[in-house]
Amino acid sequence: MSITSFNPPVRTLMGPGPSDVHPRVTGAMARPCIGHLDPAFVGMMDEVKLLLQYAFKTQNQLTIPVSAPGSAGMETTFQNLLERGDKAIVCQNGVFGGRMKEVVERCGATPIMVEDDWGKPVDPQKVEDALKANPDAKLVAVVHAETSTGARSDVAAIGAIAHAHDALLLVDAVTSLGGSELRVDEWGIDAIYSGTQKCLSCTPGISPVSFSERAVAVITGRKSKVQSWFLDTNLVMGYWGPNAKRAYHHTAPVNALYALHESLVMLQEEGLENAWQRHLDNHLALRAGLEAMGLSFVVEEAWRLPQLNSVTVPEGIDEAAVRARLLSEFNLEIGAGLGALAGKVWRIGLMGHSSRAENIFLCLSSLEAVLGEMGAPIETGVALAAAQARLSGD
Amino acid sequence: MSITSFNPPVRTLMGPGPSDVHPRVTGAMARPCIGHLDPAFVGMMDEVKLLLQYAFKTQNQLTIPVSAPGSAGMETTFQNLLERGDKAIVCQNGVFGGRMKEVVERCGATPIMVEDDWGKPVDPQKVEDALKANPDAKLVAVVHAETSTGARSDVAAIGAIAHAHDALLLVDAVTSLGGSELRVDEWGIDAIYSGTQKCLSCTPGISPVSFSERAVAVITGRKSKVQSWFLDTNLVMGYWGPNAKRAYHHTAPVNALYALHESLVMLQEEGLENAWQRHLDNHLALRAGLEAMGLSFVVEEAWRLPQLNSVTVPEGIDEAAVRARLLSEFNLEIGAGLGALAGKVWRIGLMGHSSRAENIFLCLSSLEAVLGEMGAPIETGVALAAAQARLSGD
Repeated sequence: MSITSFNPPVRTLMGPGPSDVHPRVTGAMARPCIGHLDPAFVGMMDEVKLLLQYAFKTQNQLTIPVSAPGSAGMETTFQNLLERGDKAIVCQNGVFGGRMKEVVERCGATPIMVEDDWGKPVDPQKVEDALKANPDAKLVAVVHAETSTGARSDVAAIGAIAHAHDALLLVDAVTSLGGSELRVDEWGIDAIYSGTQKCLSCTPGISPVSFSERAVAVITGRKSKVQSWFLDTNLVMGYWGPNAKRAYHHTAPVNALYALHESLVMLQEEGLENAWQRHLDNHLALRAGLEAMGLSFVVEEAWRLPQLNSVTVPEGIDEAAVRARLLSEFNLEIGAGLGALAGKVWRIGLMGHSSRAENIFLCLSSLEAVLGEMGAPIETGVALAAAQARLSGD
Repeated sequence: MSITSFNPPVRTLMGPGPSDVHPRVTGAMARPCIGHLDPAFVGMMDEVKLLLQYAFKTQNQLTIPVSAPGSAGMETTFQNLLERGDKAIVCQNGVFGGRMKEVVERCGATPIMVEDDWGKPVDPQKVEDALKANPDAKLVAVVHAETSTGARSDVAAIGAIAHAHDALLLVDAVTSLGGSELRVDEWGIDAIYSGTQKCLSCTPGISPVSFSERAVAVITGRKSKVQSWFLDTNLVMGYWGPNAKRAYHHTAPVNALYALHESLVMLQEEGLENAWQRHLDNHLALRAGLEAMGLSFVVEEAWRLPQLNSVTVPEGIDEAAVRARLLSEFNLEIGAGLGALAGKVWRIGLMGHSSRAENIFLCLSSLEAVLGEMGAPIETGVALAAAQARLSGD
């Protein structure tokens, strides 16, 4: 065996994440490692907390980066809030609602499922019905931006219903944070988790989470210990709490946190609302091009996520072959469908640093070239102009 | 709020980890991010698996990097092997045996504790007694290299006893992997976890783990699901198994895995046994200098870890003040004592890229300077020559 250094190909990442990472972020990641208890590192972590509060639009004290990917963030929220025997209402309209169900069951709690079709938003009326039928439900869990379909759900409306029934609101914001409107305090979100590799333009591996005071009271008042020592926020608060001693809990992923810090500094420089607007503007340009080509969207306009565009594969086209050619000929990655949508759709991400004009042009021109050669029933020669018209604000 | 880019101070890391990260590793980490399902990334992950098998000296198929720090690796091994109601023998001779106890309890299992003094190795006779008293114990868990004290334990001997009683052997190798003799297959280790930020010279954040075939049979034969969806190796095997479809489980921390790959390539270039020998040689040089100065070691020679040197603080000296001065005046980090040894010892790491002559000289000279100014009862002017004599092989 003789294995040498790995030099990755240079890709343009327009799948469901990871998205393109800005060189400022990878540059920050490569800075010299220091100790996780070094005063300089502790100071940086205080800044990460402030920046995450900014990105989440929250004053929550317990706003921290979990030292693992988004699915560990999901487990952090459920495992800390649920005890064995609890009931949780779980809304499912895609893959990630299904993962929530799995996690609830593994907490020894009972999931009450509220199901909607893939590609549709969660129906608040069904949530209300479920709460009426289960007045002892401890929380309602909903995916804000379903990465598997590209559909947004009305978290604020669902939150109001949950609170009217004395239930907590738990939200998956993996794909929404930094990319579309999200207001943790205003919307009454009690627990939320996200990922770094989507609209924050950062590398994958860290999960920002935040808990409201109401949620913290539930966590500190638990009768049983949290199942995971690693994810127990009662222990993590020894490091992060307002009067904490910065006690050692686990060794933080120092360089990954440099990267997150830098990506959040960039978000602050751009301005959160400006970032939301950029994602929307670029979505409209991509959409204009795709529709000019004759492709259609899976999700209806009102619930479409600007950062994740699910597009129906034209009839008779082998969608995997298209993705393989885009990757090998143009170094362009777009995403496949998942679960119920596997084989039927492409998921085109315009997230974070990937959400820019040059990516839209690359995607439209290479997709047109490949689909054209494969004999797909598309309109050629019109997509770029349509996108450009939109980008110019015509 | 206006927060700017973070530029860390440049430290020399001689605490209990993270250790100095080689620039080749941070350089690899800064390479462009690609998708976690990209064929190029999947190929790199195959190499990571081969390289981890090399570092662990194992043929275990289920040898993988867990996408989170060492404490998540610990939970991965316990949560996959234990079910509610199981019994586990847990050896404790420092902080990390105590953490194992916590994790076992949170699995709903019962820990049977085998305790030894901090700084001493685990006594195999006590393990045998515990197994005789608890013939239904499912596993024996032991820390190979106690990072909190610097003591090594005889994992091979404990493994033989465990197997004679039909129990699995679970080992914490966070501080030993790559730094001192460790033979997973030869020693009969059934489950093992480590960290990247110690003797592998990599950044913190990933935990290499490995399971024997016997352990995999226990995992696949479970009656209940693993508590954590994120850490469930039954699911992870869909990505890593020999005939796996590379199914999406979670988004891998791509750039952190570039770094691990590079650090393992460097280990292979040096040669594993050569790396063990380097850690030993440098330990002997540091020891010669410290002893010439009049400082003494906590752990007796036979059980001393070369990569983690626990040294008794001279009487009348404020150990925290010494560390603060080393950090502020010389950018040198050494570690404090933990738990029962807090305030009484320093932990000086010579791990991975930190294990080199220039670090030994910096440590001895700056410690001598600071202790001298603080009026400690030490011998001055002799440490460097003693270390140098040892380095020259005299």
